[in-house]
Amino acid sequence: MDPRVTEHAKLIVTYSTGVKKGDEVLIMSSDYGLDLASEIYKEAAKLGGSPLIIMTPSEVTRAYYEVTPEEYLDIFPNHLYELTKASDVVVSIRSDINTRTLGNVDSKKLTRRDKTTRKIQDERLTKRWCLTQAPTPGFAQDADMSLKEYEDFVYSAILIDWTKQRGQMEQLKKALDAADKVQIVGERTNLTMSIKGRNAVVGDATHNVPGGEVYTAPVDDSAEGEIWFDLPGIRYGREIKGIRLKFSGGEVVDYSAETNQETLKSIIETDQGSRRIGELGIGTNRGIGRFTKNILFDEKIGDAIHLALGNAYKDCGGVNKSAIHWDMIKTMKPGQILLDSKTVQKDGKFAWE
Amino acid sequence: MDPRVTEHAKLIVTYSTGVKKGDEVLIMSSDYGLDLASEIYKEAAKLGGSPLIIMTPSEVTRAYYEVTPEEYLDIFPNHLYELTKASDVVVSIRSDINTRTLGNVDSKKLTRRDKTTRKIQDERLTKRWCLTQAPTPGFAQDADMSLKEYEDFVYSAILIDWTKQRGQMEQLKKALDAADKVQIVGERTNLTMSIKGRNAVVGDATHNVPGGEVYTAPVDDSAEGEIWFDLPGIRYGREIKGIRLKFSGGEVVDYSAETNQETLKSIIETDQGSRRIGELGIGTNRGIGRFTKNILFDEKIGDAIHLALGNAYKDCGGVNKSAIHWDMIKTMKPGQILLDSKTVQKDGKFAWE
Repeated sequence: MDPRVTEHAKLIVTYSTGVKKGDEVLIMSSDYGLDLASEIYKEAAKLGGSPLIIMTPSEVTRAYYEVTPEEYLDIFPNHLYELTKASDVVVSIRSDINTRTLGNVDSKKLTRRDKTTRKIQDERLTKRWCLTQAPTPGFAQDADMSLKEYEDFVYSAILIDWTKQRGQMEQLKKALDAADKVQIVGERTNLTMSIKGRNAVVGDATHNVPGGEVYTAPVDDSAEGEIWFDLPGIRYGREIKGIRLKFSGGEVVDYSAETNQETLKSIIETDQGSRRIGELGIGTNRGIGRFTKNILFDEKIGDAIHLALGNAYKDCGGVNKSAIHWDMIKTMKPGQILLDSKTVQKDGKFAWE
Repeated sequence: MDPRVTEHAKLIVTYSTGVKKGDEVLIMSSDYGLDLASEIYKEAAKLGGSPLIIMTPSEVTRAYYEVTPEEYLDIFPNHLYELTKASDVVVSIRSDINTRTLGNVDSKKLTRRDKTTRKIQDERLTKRWCLTQAPTPGFAQDADMSLKEYEDFVYSAILIDWTKQRGQMEQLKKALDAADKVQIVGERTNLTMSIKGRNAVVGDATHNVPGGEVYTAPVDDSAEGEIWFDLPGIRYGREIKGIRLKFSGGEVVDYSAETNQETLKSIIETDQGSRRIGELGIGTNRGIGRFTKNILFDEKIGDAIHLALGNAYKDCGGVNKSAIHWDMIKTMKPGQILLDSKTVQKDGKFAWE
């Protein structure tokens, strides 16, 4: 096995989730995550954690939607909820062998199921949770790389000095925490939001591995203006290109997309909270050198910002509730981020750099 | 995938555990069980069950004992307990790629861990539980077969007409329920036990798949005499050959083995209950044509009986408690089973045949 898998596991168990004696550790994986899950299991056991691996092959998830009668999609998996409640640490490993496995599943079914299981997702967010990824052929293919090349890409983004990174991100957090208003200006874009009273969070390598973003939760009714995302959004393996959103009073009041607009529609119309911005993030991971059609990495690119529709994070002081939390990213070269009308980033370079 | 895997899954979900709408279904697997686990997942979802797969690779279990500081073996995995409590159906799939994976682990550590997690095992037995097996290279090797040959062996034992089998087993149950005293006579063997007031259970294909045994729980202090097992017992991949047990007042008072006697010692000395017989079973599956060093199959051979030291099944009216339930089997050709001094089986043939 690649020794970097063990390093990845050690980072998660120590830096990201701080496993200690008596911790109940839940590890969730699909196709290609079992090696990483197994290493996390061992590292957690060393420290006195009780690890458990949940495995859901991606073809099983797809088949679930194929064979399950539609009314059964509302059945709540209470045992998974009880398991999650009893856990202290929850690590989710994105590891589908093929990122299009759910591409032909009716998106209404997917959002219906997301709504049913939202309580579990909410519960998970109260834990020391971590979302990470194993290199898989599908993610490599999306990134236009071989699997070996992609492994190098993934570990370059993950296995870095997070203590040093953290220091740099703290500077951006300070600027955000001191500001009331954020303005995003760029191609076909002029969007303002209030972040007054909200808390910017340094996403080093705790909840997301790789980390490399500073994010906050805009005030729910404050977004005004338009934004155009030059990079495609991905939902259940589908690319939604050229997303344009228009906000008024914090809600999406108009939208369009160049491809898969009906999928965008179903996302926005999931519930009341899915019309609002749950997250504004600014990417800081300069180790991620290219767009790979994978939000976990792309949102961390140093010259990009991202917005998520839907559920807000409590640690930002966010209150918006939704069954979804769906990110869209925008390159900021060219572009500007202004805090209280003062430019803090221009064309991907921070004012203090 | 082999279509027999789907048939196996259907048998478990319908006949064995009767999954219905709203059932929480827990599926536990190791290395080679994922295909079967996935098929069980799908079949359960069709019927409105909520399936969840726990995956513990055998090398992870081994590594757990290697890396975990000894005092941490007493840490109780409460999240697994809560998950089990919240489940209606628990399916365990024996599927280690190599049956010797735990062969070099200190057996004291293994029994210490078994004691710690006994409450979970007890909880599982209150559910609609099922223990089955997937064909793996290791089990095939133990059986002196190729994997393909072993697949045929496994499915010949499993995919049979269980309704018909059940009728034949009911006859044996009636005879046992009507009797107070069982006597096992054979080579170096003369053992008597009371089964007065206990209930014989027809093991068709519900708790064990394959099924093919009728079993009961002897009265705890009743076993008197000696028994010699011509077939080896297997514990954590170790063969214990030529086991001889002497009972008085229901307890093992003397014992020996030709190989691995220290492993036998650690089994017998696990706790108070491990010195007593928790189960007497009589095999009835004539589809299992040979000994394969695998208790799940061997105990069902039509010309064999088996005794288990340790925990008794409640459905037999058994009360003996132990952290272990460990089976040993004995060929009954030549041999006799007597009920209230009347021969019911002689040299592998029932009186009514």
